Amino acid sequence: MSLDRRVTFYHAPQTRSSGTLALLKELGADYDLRLINLRAGEQRQPAYLAINPMGKVPAIRHGEALVSEQGAIFIYLADLYPEAGLAPAIGDPLRGPYLRWLVFYGSSFEPAVTDRSLGREPAPLARSPYGSFDDVLKTLDNQLEKGPYLLGERFTAADVLWGSALAWTTGFGLVPKTPAIERYLGKVTTRPVFARVAERDAQWAAEHAAAAGQG
Amino acid sequence: MSLDRRVTFYHAPQTRSSGTLALLKELGADYDLRLINLRAGEQRQPAYLAINPMGKVPAIRHGEALVSEQGAIFIYLADLYPEAGLAPAIGDPLRGPYLRWLVFYGSSFEPAVTDRSLGREPAPLARSPYGSFDDVLKTLDNQLEKGPYLLGERFTAADVLWGSALAWTTGFGLVPKTPAIERYLGKVTTRPVFARVAERDAQWAAEHAAAAGQG
Repeated sequence: MSLDRRVTFYHAPQTRSSGTLALLKELGADYDLRLINLRAGEQRQPAYLAINPMGKVPAIRHGEALVSEQGAIFIYLADLYPEAGLAPAIGDPLRGPYLRWLVFYGSSFEPAVTDRSLGREPAPLARSPYGSFDDVLKTLDNQLEKGPYLLGERFTAADVLWGSALAWTTGFGLVPKTPAIERYLGKVTTRPVFARVAERDAQWAAEHAAAAGQG
Repeated sequence: MSLDRRVTFYHAPQTRSSGTLALLKELGADYDLRLINLRAGEQRQPAYLAINPMGKVPAIRHGEALVSEQGAIFIYLADLYPEAGLAPAIGDPLRGPYLRWLVFYGSSFEPAVTDRSLGREPAPLARSPYGSFDDVLKTLDNQLEKGPYLLGERFTAADVLWGSALAWTTGFGLVPKTPAIERYLGKVTTRPVFARVAERDAQWAAEHAAAAGQG
């Protein structure tokens, strides 16, 4: 590994990037934290757009490279810390399913949840990236029923992403708490790292609200 | 590598899975082809749903494992054939950008194109996975302007995905042919593999139309 492994992590508390913070902690990774105050609109300001032109969090920089998109960030970071054991290695039979579920999150689950949260019909089947919300939910639920983790006995970075995502989407009532999802959340989001992230996030969110109020 | 590298590839001609066929050919990969006749509705029939419960192509099986989602399939296959040189290895400074663009395709570009093709407004910024169509296009276009390939001088599996995607989305008028996109298409989709895929696809599509007509 020629690069120093330290990355810069762009985070907004209580958002999608909270899952990445949990992953960095699970990996025991070295990182410099840069907080983005969404309430003050920092994600759309030139300083941040120069980092990530999409104006989204999470994002990481490693050397000269920007890595954005949650699935890509998770794959990248977990491979960067193989000693943490959260990524099935290339050649491991779990590698394919691991990649599938990390990419499925952004390409099927998020579009389905977005449509549902807006009360929109999914696109016609031939054009839809995900089919129907029920297809997505059933595919996910069937996988979680096998349990205890998304890929079976092995806890991986994919569980950090899906645990975070299911916590907030069930919290907002966008995804039903099926028995399999409830059992899964009890297994994943009870890990100490999740409580630590929630606590730090709450502090930062309060600071951001105060700063935006003064702005 | 303990597994035999031969995969089973589920393909419907002239669809999103055509890019995966191009990738398999660029990699010189071993695969068994299974054609899915979309006109006959085979993607929603039990035989295929048992393979991929989402009823979508492309999908591959490798041993017991299903790999679906284009970004995941591309990452998986290109890593399976390192000698083809289409995947920057773990530890290579291009690895992060490579993953970013392969995942960005499904999590930002496709949702943006789907909304545009349906004439729908994007979701409000805080909920949208992609922001605005113009954000997506500008981010992509700025990257392609650096050229000649998506990651610069090096041709990778990401170019096979983006070349295929930009060919059909510009073909349907969903994405404008900016000078950078036009130059890029001229560089990527003129590779011999793309013509071979188009030719085979046209034959299969004709056979499928005939078979569905008789069904």
